[in-house]
Amino acid sequence: MEYELAQLTSQITPLDPQWTARAQERLDSLTKPPGSLGKLEELAAHYVAIREEFFPRLEIKRIVVFAGDHGVVAEGVSAFPQEVTFQMVANFIRGGAAINVLARQAGARVEVVDIGVNHDFEPGLNLIARKVAYGTRNLAQEPAMSREEALRAVWVGVERAQEAVEDGVDVLAAGDMGIGNTTAAAALAAVFTDRPVGAVTGRGTGIDPSRVTHKVAVINRALALNRPTADDPIGALAAVGGLEIASIAGLVLGAAAARRPLVLDGFIATAGALVAARLVPAVVDYLIAAHRSVEPGHQIILDHLGLKPLVNLNMRLGEGTGAALGINLLEAGWRIYREMATFEEAGVANRD
Amino acid sequence: MEYELAQLTSQITPLDPQWTARAQERLDSLTKPPGSLGKLEELAAHYVAIREEFFPRLEIKRIVVFAGDHGVVAEGVSAFPQEVTFQMVANFIRGGAAINVLARQAGARVEVVDIGVNHDFEPGLNLIARKVAYGTRNLAQEPAMSREEALRAVWVGVERAQEAVEDGVDVLAAGDMGIGNTTAAAALAAVFTDRPVGAVTGRGTGIDPSRVTHKVAVINRALALNRPTADDPIGALAAVGGLEIASIAGLVLGAAAARRPLVLDGFIATAGALVAARLVPAVVDYLIAAHRSVEPGHQIILDHLGLKPLVNLNMRLGEGTGAALGINLLEAGWRIYREMATFEEAGVANRD
Repeated sequence: MEYELAQLTSQITPLDPQWTARAQERLDSLTKPPGSLGKLEELAAHYVAIREEFFPRLEIKRIVVFAGDHGVVAEGVSAFPQEVTFQMVANFIRGGAAINVLARQAGARVEVVDIGVNHDFEPGLNLIARKVAYGTRNLAQEPAMSREEALRAVWVGVERAQEAVEDGVDVLAAGDMGIGNTTAAAALAAVFTDRPVGAVTGRGTGIDPSRVTHKVAVINRALALNRPTADDPIGALAAVGGLEIASIAGLVLGAAAARRPLVLDGFIATAGALVAARLVPAVVDYLIAAHRSVEPGHQIILDHLGLKPLVNLNMRLGEGTGAALGINLLEAGWRIYREMATFEEAGVANRD
Repeated sequence: MEYELAQLTSQITPLDPQWTARAQERLDSLTKPPGSLGKLEELAAHYVAIREEFFPRLEIKRIVVFAGDHGVVAEGVSAFPQEVTFQMVANFIRGGAAINVLARQAGARVEVVDIGVNHDFEPGLNLIARKVAYGTRNLAQEPAMSREEALRAVWVGVERAQEAVEDGVDVLAAGDMGIGNTTAAAALAAVFTDRPVGAVTGRGTGIDPSRVTHKVAVINRALALNRPTADDPIGALAAVGGLEIASIAGLVLGAAAARRPLVLDGFIATAGALVAARLVPAVVDYLIAAHRSVEPGHQIILDHLGLKPLVNLNMRLGEGTGAALGINLLEAGWRIYREMATFEEAGVANRD
């Protein structure tokens, strides 16, 4: 599978700035002072450069939510019990979760993937069943996954991107569900950004400060035990990552290889992108950082990747909720680019 | 008319925090960690408190764009010629401007009001014709308006809010069009926030820095000549304001009196709100600051009013474009509040 992955990553190339320039030329011909729509204009030009089409379609949007459990919850790092992962998956399927609500507003479909939930779902549910394991193992005591498991989870993400593109999806977004996953994301953030664990670890779903201290100690123990290094991204992912994070890394790779934008959510999704970017730095060109999460490690990863989040709304839920808002903004920029009249069409005088 | 205005303003009362608390109780029962949707939750609770209903409807949205010209353009303060005001009004009517595009995305209707454009529009256009004058006079040489003109323009704004509410509008937003209007808005910002003109004056549609220096001098001349004071808000509005800014002040008052949220756009709309808030401080409770504009005076007014903008996307167009994005976010918060399943409904375990 490492061979297939190498094949895929070889297809990912940096964006061609000529497309951005062509798009900006059109944006400057529209009835507004040049640049006056700020980041909406940047999003439009970015989208054109990703798609390499002068008038790309932006119609079909999909948010892929990967769900997986984490053995490290045995260490008491989360405010919620592990069964919440499968209960929330059921909630996603019924349409009652925050991501369902915000995806409806964004006109996006939610695809839920069981990549590693510690639960047997009944057959026939509207769920992509790709379980690699019943959750990771406890990373404070042993590697979270085998290398093979990590690669399988990455590849599921790649395939979700490929299938989405076959379905005509124009924009992809990554979401996550997994009680305990801010612990894994913080561990990866520490490995790849080389910042101390204390700087990248936060309150997750809302643990109190004394438990954050405990969480930092658990992660430090995991790093000392497993010795993950950034030079072996798949190895690090296996050692201290999560199945859903691995799949998100794969979705990022698959989206970039197929020239589709990948709208990132918060800390977990961005940790997945961090792993992908270590494999292929050019994937960053295909990423749109939707928002800045409350989790302190999120901004640190964004800075490391050179990404600027579009908004900061003090959100810290995950599931793809921030990404759904980012899709709205991307669409706003694209509509501006696509639908506004030019000075010539509207008979409006340009600046003196 | 000052009597009618006093009657109206007496109806505006601060929000009742009990409604916010009731809304927050519901938000905390939904399947997410409490507070994890940050500002979306605050927006939902704010909306409930404004409407004073446990499940208010949020369906009909209207962006009112007031257009007026400015005699001060004779001083060379703008990058675009004055005829752009009426040309852009025609563009609004045909649906080709940025505000039309973003309003369509937000599911909002755009209402265009001619409050003082220096142009005779043909009859039969989809335009609310309420022209008070063919633009203001040159505020660097004489008062921009008479007190009577300012009051008439304010009252048109009040009536637009009242008519919107009669039409069933749930959410109102204010937009503007008027070449030269950042000069008037900066003058008002200086008067009401007591900050130096240089601090509140920016590049508008894109003048170069040397012309900004000239613009500051023009405004300082206008303030020295007209001597507006914050203690007489209508007098200050008449002296150095604009017809569209006066109408926005009226729209703000009308929305608050009818318990409807008023989503603010950028510098011009917020300058209108600044005048309204000096008349009735409680109007601030009904305002939603959608975005932070590039214009330096905008953040200064927002700080003065105690408002925090939702997003900063480096926009500086006006027309209501930032407000349209704000409507999307308000609706996101409302949908979360309205559509998400509770822990009980979804059978999800709450935190330990």
